[in-house]
Amino acid sequence: MAESYKIGIDIFGGDNAPECNLNGVQKFLESHNDLLKTVSLFLFGESASIIQYLGKEICSQSYINIIDCKEVIGFNDHPVKAFLTKKDSSIVKGFHYLKADKIDVFSSAGNTGAMMVGATQAIGMLDGISRPVITSVLPRESGEDGIILDVGINADCKPEVLDQFAVIGSIYAEHICKISEPKVGLLNIGEEEEKGNLLTKATHKLLKQNERINFIGNIESRGILNDGADVIVCDGFTGNVILKQAESFYEIIKKRGIEDNYFERFNYESYGGTPVLGINSNVIIAHGISNAEAISNMIKLSYDVVEIDLPQKIKNAL
Amino acid sequence: MAESYKIGIDIFGGDNAPECNLNGVQKFLESHNDLLKTVSLFLFGESASIIQYLGKEICSQSYINIIDCKEVIGFNDHPVKAFLTKKDSSIVKGFHYLKADKIDVFSSAGNTGAMMVGATQAIGMLDGISRPVITSVLPRESGEDGIILDVGINADCKPEVLDQFAVIGSIYAEHICKISEPKVGLLNIGEEEEKGNLLTKATHKLLKQNERINFIGNIESRGILNDGADVIVCDGFTGNVILKQAESFYEIIKKRGIEDNYFERFNYESYGGTPVLGINSNVIIAHGISNAEAISNMIKLSYDVVEIDLPQKIKNAL
Repeated sequence: MAESYKIGIDIFGGDNAPECNLNGVQKFLESHNDLLKTVSLFLFGESASIIQYLGKEICSQSYINIIDCKEVIGFNDHPVKAFLTKKDSSIVKGFHYLKADKIDVFSSAGNTGAMMVGATQAIGMLDGISRPVITSVLPRESGEDGIILDVGINADCKPEVLDQFAVIGSIYAEHICKISEPKVGLLNIGEEEEKGNLLTKATHKLLKQNERINFIGNIESRGILNDGADVIVCDGFTGNVILKQAESFYEIIKKRGIEDNYFERFNYESYGGTPVLGINSNVIIAHGISNAEAISNMIKLSYDVVEIDLPQKIKNAL
Repeated sequence: MAESYKIGIDIFGGDNAPECNLNGVQKFLESHNDLLKTVSLFLFGESASIIQYLGKEICSQSYINIIDCKEVIGFNDHPVKAFLTKKDSSIVKGFHYLKADKIDVFSSAGNTGAMMVGATQAIGMLDGISRPVITSVLPRESGEDGIILDVGINADCKPEVLDQFAVIGSIYAEHICKISEPKVGLLNIGEEEEKGNLLTKATHKLLKQNERINFIGNIESRGILNDGADVIVCDGFTGNVILKQAESFYEIIKKRGIEDNYFERFNYESYGGTPVLGINSNVIIAHGISNAEAISNMIKLSYDVVEIDLPQKIKNAL
């Protein structure tokens, strides 16, 4: 029997937890029958509720493990404080298991700050990487998806950090999005090399010299949804602004009753989240508003990052 | 007879010049018959073409003045160099007239860089103002328009500069958009005071203490199209990213054949441009892609800023 991938899932993290999370687990089990021989799910949360919801039959399967947690870190909890004090919470226990190699990946739609505390402090950075980074999918007009990073962890960045993001993003696009030699664009306010702010001007120089990436130059925000670049690099402030503006357009489109296949791909409720890239293990952060489909996709993404061994790939590249 | 407002218009600036510009002049004359007693239009450009296009009857009216210019500053011209060498261009001549008080305002859809050279070097800053700033309209869901500034001139800003933008934006919103006590929001990546990058954290403190404005706190990019704030303050890099992302969404909506009244308000082709705020006179910069309606609106906006005497209002407030 092949070695199984041990996937830890926070059942009590997220706006719609635990119901959506448990529906998401069921959805994953139903739609990925082929993976059940190579996967072990570790469900972190109050065991009685989990068993009651999923039923004894599912819970007795060999690929289901329930880790009883009596506490929950909520969205209003202070991340550092909660991580230090709520020892019996699903997030803290998840990181204990991850740190001890009892699981290969830990995924949650819960308190992002607490997840970042776990990722950076309980797990820590890969050697040579300055800052952790998270990505978001950019649904492109061609049908393919691009990615943008950072989208919120690093509000202030140095050029060297963006240079690392370009490499990390390329690896992610290559192995997770299956784009070979992904084209990297620097988000900027002008296509010409000399345009931009101090950060983008200095970063442009570094990216141009970086032989590990396929740099194609500056991309304006009006060009991020076409096929110019597969990986868009920016600081976390700008990326977060772009992401939330896209979300707001999608919300207005829905509110106005517009039905459109392309814009439906902006429904961030159904995306499976993003790995925290640059750290020494696999951690997935999903959107707080994740629905069951998103949780199912989060589990699949968790499977993929473990299978590919993303941290090792990033380590090798830098 | 009341004193007339002398409005200078670059007939040869813009992607669709001179046809669209001249159509725009005609459109203005037709739709603002009531203003013709208090307005003199100064048309900068090759006089033979202008007379041929508009016809002798219009051109002989007392409110039409044609200033013959033999050169054009194109989009690919280097702004500073072109401003120094193309002495007989519509932009350079326009600024000569403005500087000499022969006109009260100069407006162009041409080379933005050259317009900024004229605004900052031929005209210069108001006492006490550090940087010029340009705004863009944000079409809000309620039907009213908000504004965002800066949208592109100042890629790197200090907190003190954003603090001035907040005052300037408030005056613009009050007198041009007719919003009393406009609510000012700081664009940020979190609503809480302690969120953001170094710039927004420091700016938040200044705006909170600024008694000249009605500061309501941080606004995320997902909230700029609702009624949270009338004036959104940000650095020119972020503002430009937001503006161009909105333009790209609008373009995709059009491309996909979606008809919607609300999104039609994102058609930046039809907006009349923005004054360069903070300088010692009235200069209007319009979008290069301006159509006839946009040019007509540009002339009306020129009329409004002269009537209101925006530079004096800003001077008084600071």
